[in-house]
Amino acid sequence: MSNLINQTCEACESGAPLVSETDQAKLLEGLDGWEIDNAEISKLVKKYKFLSYSESSTFVNLIVDLAESEDHHPKITLEWGLVHLEWWSHKIQGLHMNDFICAAKSDLIFKNFY
Amino acid sequence: MSNLINQTCEACESGAPLVSETDQAKLLEGLDGWEIDNAEISKLVKKYKFLSYSESSTFVNLIVDLAESEDHHPKITLEWGLVHLEWWSHKIQGLHMNDFICAAKSDLIFKNFY
Repeated sequence: MSNLINQTCEACESGAPLVSETDQAKLLEGLDGWEIDNAEISKLVKKYKFLSYSESSTFVNLIVDLAESEDHHPKITLEWGLVHLEWWSHKIQGLHMNDFICAAKSDLIFKNFY
Repeated sequence: MSNLINQTCEACESGAPLVSETDQAKLLEGLDGWEIDNAEISKLVKKYKFLSYSESSTFVNLIVDLAESEDHHPKITLEWGLVHLEWWSHKIQGLHMNDFICAAKSDLIFKNFY
């Protein structure tokens, strides 16, 4: 994870390389509790638990700040006590290195939350 | 809608009345673009479109403020240019009058957004 959080997202254009399945498995080992959802487009997904709706909302705003600073935007689902994050790269319809970087940075934000 | 936005949510305990299907249909007529998703629990759902992620996020925060003030909390999904709202009443596993009140108030927030 430490290596990922020191990287920043690069512009991801159509034709940029997808992370190979072998590399996905290696990168997942360095992340905490993330899974790959291959139901449609491959997505990096995780659910974070919170003690209230208000705290879920505060976390969402920190993720929005991350998204804007990296110019990479996840799908975020907010419920009472729960935030579901989904990172993937729209332009290449799958997982780019950017998604693993943002997953690691999301964990860092969560780690510093409580 | 005008009638709904002048109401406030009441405490919804287990055993509180579900809105009948006949009344659901009447109430939907007074709302703009809301649908009822009966896939699992009945939910009142709508997708709002925005010009950017940042605007989607601002709208989400206004809905969170509404949720906290009404003590009624929707599921909110934030994507680039899109916010998906789902109102239902957890304690009665379906639609309470509170959900229609909050749907109408969500529309009022959106109406004043741009």
